[in-house]
Amino acid sequence: MASHSVSTVFNKNMAFTANINGHDIVMDTTVKGGGDDSGASPKQLMLASLAGCTGMDVVSVLAKMKVAFTDFSMDVVAGLTEEHPMIYNQVKLTYKIKVAEADQSKVEKAVNLSQEKYCGVSAMFRAFADLKTEIVYLP
Amino acid sequence: MASHSVSTVFNKNMAFTANINGHDIVMDTTVKGGGDDSGASPKQLMLASLAGCTGMDVVSVLAKMKVAFTDFSMDVVAGLTEEHPMIYNQVKLTYKIKVAEADQSKVEKAVNLSQEKYCGVSAMFRAFADLKTEIVYLP
Repeated sequence: MASHSVSTVFNKNMAFTANINGHDIVMDTTVKGGGDDSGASPKQLMLASLAGCTGMDVVSVLAKMKVAFTDFSMDVVAGLTEEHPMIYNQVKLTYKIKVAEADQSKVEKAVNLSQEKYCGVSAMFRAFADLKTEIVYLP
Repeated sequence: MASHSVSTVFNKNMAFTANINGHDIVMDTTVKGGGDDSGASPKQLMLASLAGCTGMDVVSVLAKMKVAFTDFSMDVVAGLTEEHPMIYNQVKLTYKIKVAEADQSKVEKAVNLSQEKYCGVSAMFRAFADLKTEIVYLP
């Protein structure tokens, strides 16, 4: 079985640094939460993970379909449960992209392939959250 | 309901940058995978998220219990399913820490509180993975 390993070291106060294949990711909490705001919130990193995973699928499929695009971004908005442990139970992922109108159906195909077949992070999110997606075509 | 929002922008080739409350997280894939290795793997970010979440709980609880410690780190090793979408189905989280022998039971208490009560990321992982934890006391 293939496996991934990540090491994470405590810095000070509430801050940690994870090393992902040579790339350092600093995590911290806000000053209000007792930290120094020196890095990203660990929980919110999961939302970046979701966008990055499906985003890579989409650009990869669009490249194979020779679809030209610009201004591609994604917004993830995730609602939290009220009781501890607080988890993301409602997640909305919005793809925003500028493509020729004739290529919009190809973008939909790329998003569907990612969500239904390739994106492991999306599949993991569906185990604990109601994950909804939307595509917004920029003018 | 409280919610978190993260925006992620496509850079080029396979690279994306997520902005988490002002902190930029660059994600990319390896050169072998068609990227430029300019940032962390999105999927592996989830493993950093897991360590950061529970690590913050542990240092926070140890601070409240006035337990002195050094050399705190965590290793996460995650096995992947073989079929697409590839998800982490077996996850081992090892806490490594140096504390006085008399304080080891307090570390166990802190880890258990995080795993059973506070750490939302651990709770989310349990929805899709068999999550095992271990504490290694460094000499």
